[in-house]
Amino acid sequence: MENGNGSMAAKKKWNYLQFHGKEEVNEEGSAAGISVRGVYSMMLSNINEEDEREVVRLCRADPTDFHCFKTTQEAPHAIAEAVHSFRFNSYAPSGGLFEARRAVANLVSSDFPYKLSPENVFLTVGCTEAINIITTVLARPGANILLPRPGYPQYQARAAFCRLEVRYFDLLPERGWEVDLDSLEALADDNTVAMVLINPSNPCGNVFTYHHLKKVAETAKKLGIFIISDEVYAHLTFGSKPYVAMGAFASIVPIITLGSLSKRWIVPGWRLGWIVTCDPHGILQDLGIVTNIKTYLQITSNPPTFVQAAIPQILEKTKDDFYTKNLNIMKEAAEILYDRCKDIPCLTCPHKPEGTMTTMIKIDFSKIEDIVDDVDFCVKLAKEESVVLLPGVTVGLKNWIRITYVVDPCALKEGLERIKSFGLRHANKLS
Amino acid sequence: MENGNGSMAAKKKWNYLQFHGKEEVNEEGSAAGISVRGVYSMMLSNINEEDEREVVRLCRADPTDFHCFKTTQEAPHAIAEAVHSFRFNSYAPSGGLFEARRAVANLVSSDFPYKLSPENVFLTVGCTEAINIITTVLARPGANILLPRPGYPQYQARAAFCRLEVRYFDLLPERGWEVDLDSLEALADDNTVAMVLINPSNPCGNVFTYHHLKKVAETAKKLGIFIISDEVYAHLTFGSKPYVAMGAFASIVPIITLGSLSKRWIVPGWRLGWIVTCDPHGILQDLGIVTNIKTYLQITSNPPTFVQAAIPQILEKTKDDFYTKNLNIMKEAAEILYDRCKDIPCLTCPHKPEGTMTTMIKIDFSKIEDIVDDVDFCVKLAKEESVVLLPGVTVGLKNWIRITYVVDPCALKEGLERIKSFGLRHANKLS
Ligand SMILES: Cc1ncc(COP(=O)(O)O)c(C=O)c1O
Ligand SMILES: Cc1ncc(COP(=O)(O)O)c(C=O)c1O
Repeated sequence: MENGNGSMAAKKKWNYLQFHGKEEVNEEGSAAGISVRGVYSMMLSNINEEDEREVVRLCRADPTDFHCFKTTQEAPHAIAEAVHSFRFNSYAPSGGLFEARRAVANLVSSDFPYKLSPENVFLTVGCTEAINIITTVLARPGANILLPRPGYPQYQARAAFCRLEVRYFDLLPERGWEVDLDSLEALADDNTVAMVLINPSNPCGNVFTYHHLKKVAETAKKLGIFIISDEVYAHLTFGSKPYVAMGAFASIVPIITLGSLSKRWIVPGWRLGWIVTCDPHGILQDLGIVTNIKTYLQITSNPPTFVQAAIPQILEKTKDDFYTKNLNIMKEAAEILYDRCKDIPCLTCPHKPEGTMTTMIKIDFSKIEDIVDDVDFCVKLAKEESVVLLPGVTVGLKNWIRITYVVDPCALKEGLERIKSFGLRHANKLS
Repeated sequence: MENGNGSMAAKKKWNYLQFHGKEEVNEEGSAAGISVRGVYSMMLSNINEEDEREVVRLCRADPTDFHCFKTTQEAPHAIAEAVHSFRFNSYAPSGGLFEARRAVANLVSSDFPYKLSPENVFLTVGCTEAINIITTVLARPGANILLPRPGYPQYQARAAFCRLEVRYFDLLPERGWEVDLDSLEALADDNTVAMVLINPSNPCGNVFTYHHLKKVAETAKKLGIFIISDEVYAHLTFGSKPYVAMGAFASIVPIITLGSLSKRWIVPGWRLGWIVTCDPHGILQDLGIVTNIKTYLQITSNPPTFVQAAIPQILEKTKDDFYTKNLNIMKEAAEILYDRCKDIPCLTCPHKPEGTMTTMIKIDFSKIEDIVDDVDFCVKLAKEESVVLLPGVTVGLKNWIRITYVVDPCALKEGLERIKSFGLRHANKLS
């Protein structure tokens, strides 16, 4: 720790040193290893600066760099109008502005057999903060939470910070990435508070059916645990299965739905998310969980007031053809990906993407040499071909890769072409 | 917990119940008792709805409701321009946009004997989140932090969440609210990681001198602890003492400066703050603290990208007369408060405010009857006179009150008039 190069730290003993052993640095440091952001910057640092080709980024679910994925005109207008009004410069109430909460309640419950009220909605700084809040609120000494594998690393990273134990149930590629309900049941015990489901599913790109979601809800009820339904990709489906909100099953088991403007409105940088309690029987209320969310929100920053104020207008004025246009490009991109993958011998995409912006692809190591694992694959690919992918280990599946196909279709084709050359160059000469 | 009114919770045993004993609810619930937001809503709930007079809010440091405290025109323009450009819809790098970090580095170090670089700056969702991040990063099993009394309750509330022990040193009203350096030294031990100083000082309204700040820095150095300098009220001084940035003493001891746009630009709802490491000898770097801040930021939401993008323009284009005009109104308000307080027998303001938006006033209970403490005083005042003040216990001083004078001068006069009537009505008949 003391690098001794004449700095004061080397000469003077700071109290901080006494707690701050190397192990602890590593323990926290490991959070970097499992955040998409952290791995993304690590991968970028491997790019060969002498390669004159454009870097193809198939790593993050953020398509804003591409002209074809621009947010609707109505959205920035709503923001500009709110900020110019001078009416939204003050601190907002800790759950959010009433009108914005109402708009989100209506959005989330539009297809529900019951209505949500504004009091069911808590606005957060993106869905990321929704995850942070809900894991903190549910954490208790000895408690555990069940997470999908593969999944979204924020849950694990955050749970580590509030000492909530995590356990993984499998999503099964051979069954279109459905939940392995047996492994789910086997994992749970009396200390399990909740399970997380991401629907539509990042990183797999599948969409769960009504029938399967109902079975998940019934299993959770049997286990006595709540469901945290991460629906940050809500409505982003373009296959044969429609998006079904988990909240539709809230009469079976309490559902805590998380969401944000980030993906559907293509504004991940706007940082506007929500926690919604879908709980027609008032169980989360009775158990004090709603009170704990409110208490925690009082010491947490919420989204800018004028951004909150813009929500009703954004939700109301966005035209259907904006959504349709985006889904069509995503569908086209998913097809390009799925088809071209077949021409790359070392890669298999077990399930054609039906929603979200990413999918999982398996690396067949019998077909390549000189590459030891998924991280090595991604690092060498970045170095040799200036293509950035996410190693599967980041999302819980070693020796797979996660690929984002929601990019400009030309960039996607170019990226896949380079991955193909890479695979051929490293092909196992014996196979 | 189980209310038994036929709800599912009463019939079904949820795992959550097993951890969630009543004590724990209270332990967390108490955070509400010490957040300004929580107490503010509690006080508002005491207002008598039949009182037809306007409610006078002298409780929160948020003057945006008053026409005389409008932010500069340049600020909303910069936001609208950024959002209309469509260039800032993507996720920002976790420390913030480089240009925005550079602008904040220049702002904070303008009077320093050394220059800060953009890498010293981390953008946060208001100063509130800056507090949350820095307490989390410094927390270690067994560690403690020294906080000023009176102070800002967010530090204590957040420290409780990361199990960081808090200890209080006194600010002395009879010495213009200077730090009691002896009590500070007596508190610290080998497990003390840092001390917090709020300068200009909320809730006291005093401004620390260069000489005193230097002594604080030297004491911290002797104790082997860092200084967290909360300068959310930077430059908001209107008495004879100028604002001196603690970072000027960073060659003595590492300073972590916290700040935000909220107060000086009168946009508390915009949620744009910062953590700045003032550390010319690289000690925070050597000790791994900078790495830990970066790691934590990777799993934390940052401010909206387009709000970050607006910062350089806001800082550059705001005209001096905007600042001067606001300081003049604040000075006038501080004078009204200080003078009129002299006419209210049960109240004493020991030190004329020189900066920030609030000050501390002592209640003399020998002069009044039927009122048992500061909370009772504020609750009855809200009920009887529709005036909202903050009970001193919220900021650590029982039987004092914190008053915000940065409101429209007419509202302030009206509020003080009502407090006077209240005092007279409750006057001790024997005194
Ligand atoms: C499954 C999942 N949940 C949450 C998030 C975070 O969303 P936000 O951008 O609203 O913070 C993401 C972002 O990619 C995600 O993929
Ligand atoms: C001393 C102090 N620190 C921090 C804050 C929080 O500032 P922000 O509004 O930027 O979150 C406040 C707000 O009143 C404050 O008084």
